[in-house]
Amino acid sequence: MKSEKKLPSAVIKRMPRYYRYLTTLQQMGISRISSRDLGNRMGITASQVRHDFFCFGASGLQGYGYDVALLRQEIRDIFSLDDMFTVIIIGAGNLGHALAKYTGFEKNGYRVIAIFDIKPELIGEKINDVEVIHLDKLPEYAKENHVDIAALTVPEIRVLEVAKLVTDNGIKALWNFSPIEMITNEDVVVENIQMIDSLMVLGYNLRAAEADKAK
Amino acid sequence: MKSEKKLPSAVIKRMPRYYRYLTTLQQMGISRISSRDLGNRMGITASQVRHDFFCFGASGLQGYGYDVALLRQEIRDIFSLDDMFTVIIIGAGNLGHALAKYTGFEKNGYRVIAIFDIKPELIGEKINDVEVIHLDKLPEYAKENHVDIAALTVPEIRVLEVAKLVTDNGIKALWNFSPIEMITNEDVVVENIQMIDSLMVLGYNLRAAEADKAK
Repeated sequence: MKSEKKLPSAVIKRMPRYYRYLTTLQQMGISRISSRDLGNRMGITASQVRHDFFCFGASGLQGYGYDVALLRQEIRDIFSLDDMFTVIIIGAGNLGHALAKYTGFEKNGYRVIAIFDIKPELIGEKINDVEVIHLDKLPEYAKENHVDIAALTVPEIRVLEVAKLVTDNGIKALWNFSPIEMITNEDVVVENIQMIDSLMVLGYNLRAAEADKAK
Repeated sequence: MKSEKKLPSAVIKRMPRYYRYLTTLQQMGISRISSRDLGNRMGITASQVRHDFFCFGASGLQGYGYDVALLRQEIRDIFSLDDMFTVIIIGAGNLGHALAKYTGFEKNGYRVIAIFDIKPELIGEKINDVEVIHLDKLPEYAKENHVDIAALTVPEIRVLEVAKLVTDNGIKALWNFSPIEMITNEDVVVENIQMIDSLMVLGYNLRAAEADKAK
């Protein structure tokens, strides 16, 4: 049972946040932590922490807590972070530039290896040492290089055709920044970044806090 | 009970996605939908749909389903989308530009009213008709204009000092794009966009799909 490793998707979604906290703890030189202390820092309950870690077979010792380095490495293993995933970015606009320049990806196991666009004036530009290549060359590029993930930062009206091009060329994972939501199927896994969702939650919590204060 | 409107945060987080689907349905001219049909489109179960809508007091009619326009308006009310929230962006780099140019915010009830930076060459630039103002002028600006939300797209090393400046000037909601996670407290509500979390989930699902195929 313990090593079956089919984790519930809700637990998987919460895991990156644990990983970030464990990384910070390790950087601070903290080698072990209780579920209560970790929960306090993260704003969740100790029992949630224990539940989530139990799901992937990690249990703390009574009176000792969790071994920070060990737990962090277990998460790295679950997420294959030591593999180094290869990522291409399609769309060298502002968002594509922002992603290409973000140093946190490589540090966490994701390497941007190419950026594609169709605008002649962008081709050949280097962003963080990564070259902008014409989208026409994607089929050739995908044959010669192993690409795990394509980040789609193209305009909304082009995203479906680009998604098709990408998956037709054997890329199996889409990181979609357009407002058009795509759904994972048997051929391709998708994560949609819907900026507006988080903004709506923020607006809701703001009005709720204002209402509380007014009481 | 029904109108207490203290919704569980997990339901609140799922609501924007329903809202997007309902908007699409309305645009397609579909006026009513069953929980099963909606669940199918969204890749969730019918009982999840019924549970979530029941939480805010909306129930479908047996054999009829939900009234799309009515349900959509209820979500608009819950999220105060007809209020029009005002948003400022701090940091006119690539990500700040991308946010300022994104047309989906205004359409959904969030208006970007100003962008702040400290680089002299950016001051006075207009992005989508919104002016870049020097950060030194933020206190004055916040006195003269009602600001609901500040989006923080500044470099990681500056984000805490900028967050302090913003909240010291009476802004109560932070939309934080830096990797440094901030936590909601009694004075300020925060939403953190952690790009890396979604990328980790995508990588996990990719490797899981590959392992399934290899079986």
